[in-house]
Amino acid sequence: MEAVRLGIIGLGNMGKGHIGYLNRGEVSNVLLTAVSDYDPAGLEWAKQHVGEQVALFADPYELMASGLVDGVLIATPHYSHPELAIAAFERGLHVLCEKPAGVYTKQVREMNDAAARSNTKFSMMYNQRTNPLYQKLKDLNDSGELGEIRRTNWIITNWYRSQSYYDSGTWRATWAGEGGGVLLNQDPHQLDLWQWTINMMPKRVRAFCYFGKHRNIEVEDDVTAFVEYENGATGVFVTTTGEAPGTNRLEISGDRGKVVIEDGQLTFWRLRTPEREFNAAFTGGFGQPECWKCEIPIHGENPDHKGITQNWVNSILYDEPLIAPGEDGIKGLMLSNAMLLSTWLDDWVDLPIDEELYYSYLQKQIAASRKTNGKGVL
Amino acid sequence: MEAVRLGIIGLGNMGKGHIGYLNRGEVSNVLLTAVSDYDPAGLEWAKQHVGEQVALFADPYELMASGLVDGVLIATPHYSHPELAIAAFERGLHVLCEKPAGVYTKQVREMNDAAARSNTKFSMMYNQRTNPLYQKLKDLNDSGELGEIRRTNWIITNWYRSQSYYDSGTWRATWAGEGGGVLLNQDPHQLDLWQWTINMMPKRVRAFCYFGKHRNIEVEDDVTAFVEYENGATGVFVTTTGEAPGTNRLEISGDRGKVVIEDGQLTFWRLRTPEREFNAAFTGGFGQPECWKCEIPIHGENPDHKGITQNWVNSILYDEPLIAPGEDGIKGLMLSNAMLLSTWLDDWVDLPIDEELYYSYLQKQIAASRKTNGKGVL
Repeated sequence: MEAVRLGIIGLGNMGKGHIGYLNRGEVSNVLLTAVSDYDPAGLEWAKQHVGEQVALFADPYELMASGLVDGVLIATPHYSHPELAIAAFERGLHVLCEKPAGVYTKQVREMNDAAARSNTKFSMMYNQRTNPLYQKLKDLNDSGELGEIRRTNWIITNWYRSQSYYDSGTWRATWAGEGGGVLLNQDPHQLDLWQWTINMMPKRVRAFCYFGKHRNIEVEDDVTAFVEYENGATGVFVTTTGEAPGTNRLEISGDRGKVVIEDGQLTFWRLRTPEREFNAAFTGGFGQPECWKCEIPIHGENPDHKGITQNWVNSILYDEPLIAPGEDGIKGLMLSNAMLLSTWLDDWVDLPIDEELYYSYLQKQIAASRKTNGKGVL
Repeated sequence: MEAVRLGIIGLGNMGKGHIGYLNRGEVSNVLLTAVSDYDPAGLEWAKQHVGEQVALFADPYELMASGLVDGVLIATPHYSHPELAIAAFERGLHVLCEKPAGVYTKQVREMNDAAARSNTKFSMMYNQRTNPLYQKLKDLNDSGELGEIRRTNWIITNWYRSQSYYDSGTWRATWAGEGGGVLLNQDPHQLDLWQWTINMMPKRVRAFCYFGKHRNIEVEDDVTAFVEYENGATGVFVTTTGEAPGTNRLEISGDRGKVVIEDGQLTFWRLRTPEREFNAAFTGGFGQPECWKCEIPIHGENPDHKGITQNWVNSILYDEPLIAPGEDGIKGLMLSNAMLLSTWLDDWVDLPIDEELYYSYLQKQIAASRKTNGKGVL
């Protein structure tokens, strides 16, 4: 194979964005050969924006069966991601899936199982994993510079969405249409980075979600979550779409110092002596380890979506390791599901969550949803 | 009365500190006339550091009965504050009390009742209320610049204490000796400012305290608390003595913007249109209120302990309004008690707390404490 023949499923904002950089030739060794959208307006748009050699399909399953594609990029509404991905894996097609991986982990686990049974390359579109800021944080953690993690704290409240935004689509912010709110629509990158950068998933979660608190919507628009990790570390995650101007500040404390990422900068307060070592030896009453405030250089721009697409293409062609293996998608979703379940139960939730229990609670929400057919928006 | 005749009860670090600025004449219209300490070493120190005209007492009750003082400054271990203050009120003496007001709210409520029955001036030594940073925050809130409060977030983890510090006194960080850990010893100012600056107490608390997590101590040294306010706002308070270098960052979001206090600076992100007003009128889908980043000038230094002492003296002599009325001391302590109780119950705690329940839980901790006589350290 010299180039991957690509089909894009779903021509919403994300699908159109991917076509943009592909048209500009910003990804090598990939050929857009087909697109699909249930919405005729999407295909009409495609006629104007893709070459004549690109086949147009209303039905994504016809696209997958056409023999025209080696892999698909799934950019449809959340609920349909696993179903379409499973169909692709069964046809031996490689999959690049938009975030979130799906709406509930039970569904995503089936997708991961199907991927494992296939001989394909599966990637999630986690285009913040290529952001040099978070790569550097992961580097500081993985190389041991930060020491054992003690505490995490992410205030990610700069996702302002007005009522006008929510009113722009009837499926928006409904249980049936999207299956969740700020956690599922705005935070998937943060929920991924929160555990990916430190290689630690919480062991249990106690969260406080508020539904339609700031807007006339069904789903959560304000969340505070407290988590415990296996090693005794704790963490806090605060998010909302209801505040302006909001904050995006990630703080990670370790035995050897503290990192803060805010305003596009990473600062590392480095302890000259690790805290536990200092504490064990110190005899002076008041006093603390010597600390150096280090400005850490961040090089390069985030290659973003096209970086992930290129990596997936290279993985197919040259077996390049995936930056965001598709199977990782369940991790951030597990956190999101756990936060909602903890709120519904008004109690702690252990991870991995009881997936059937989550599914049953979600079904209750969907049954009461004002939009009753999530699939209709595909 | 031309000058207030003052007795200082307790010659630990705080008592000695107060004598320092009084000796330097930094408070007007006050005359140190007596000091007391159960510890002979304290009185020995006093002989070297106060004038011969100052009477020395081993017993604070003898000091109060001596007729030599109009008011007392109580700077003894936490447990004894209410008992001594009540005795002072019963003798018609004015009281300036070191923080915290006491160890449990039941005890502090009795102190407040005794103050109310007396005709005296009662102030808490909340010497961060005179800090221009927090005064400015209160000003922005009280004047309506911030708008209705939506969220509070205080990360106050820069209270590093080594094992060596805790080992420096057998009463330290024990239930019997101090009755609490970081919440009672390090955080009283923050727990006061957190509600004083915005004039809002939480209505319920769900907190996660860890006991002896970082050090070999009995009491809490790591706390994360989530709170809900009556108006629907939420808040987070994170504190520990186990981290270096730690953080002190207070963020308050309102309908008209956001304030952050960190590194001795206050920044106000001011919305040109209040968020709710913007949201009600906006029809553009994506978009948010225009926001101005404003550097707010902070003038003057914190007059600190001597400022509060002067205010209390002026209140006695000229009826000047108190900056930190003694009755306010129960508020921060209520938050601290609620956080511990929520942890012990592993559940929500409504405010005001069930004071008898808290007292009974505290007694259990004291019964199991390795230091069994809290009063012995007075």
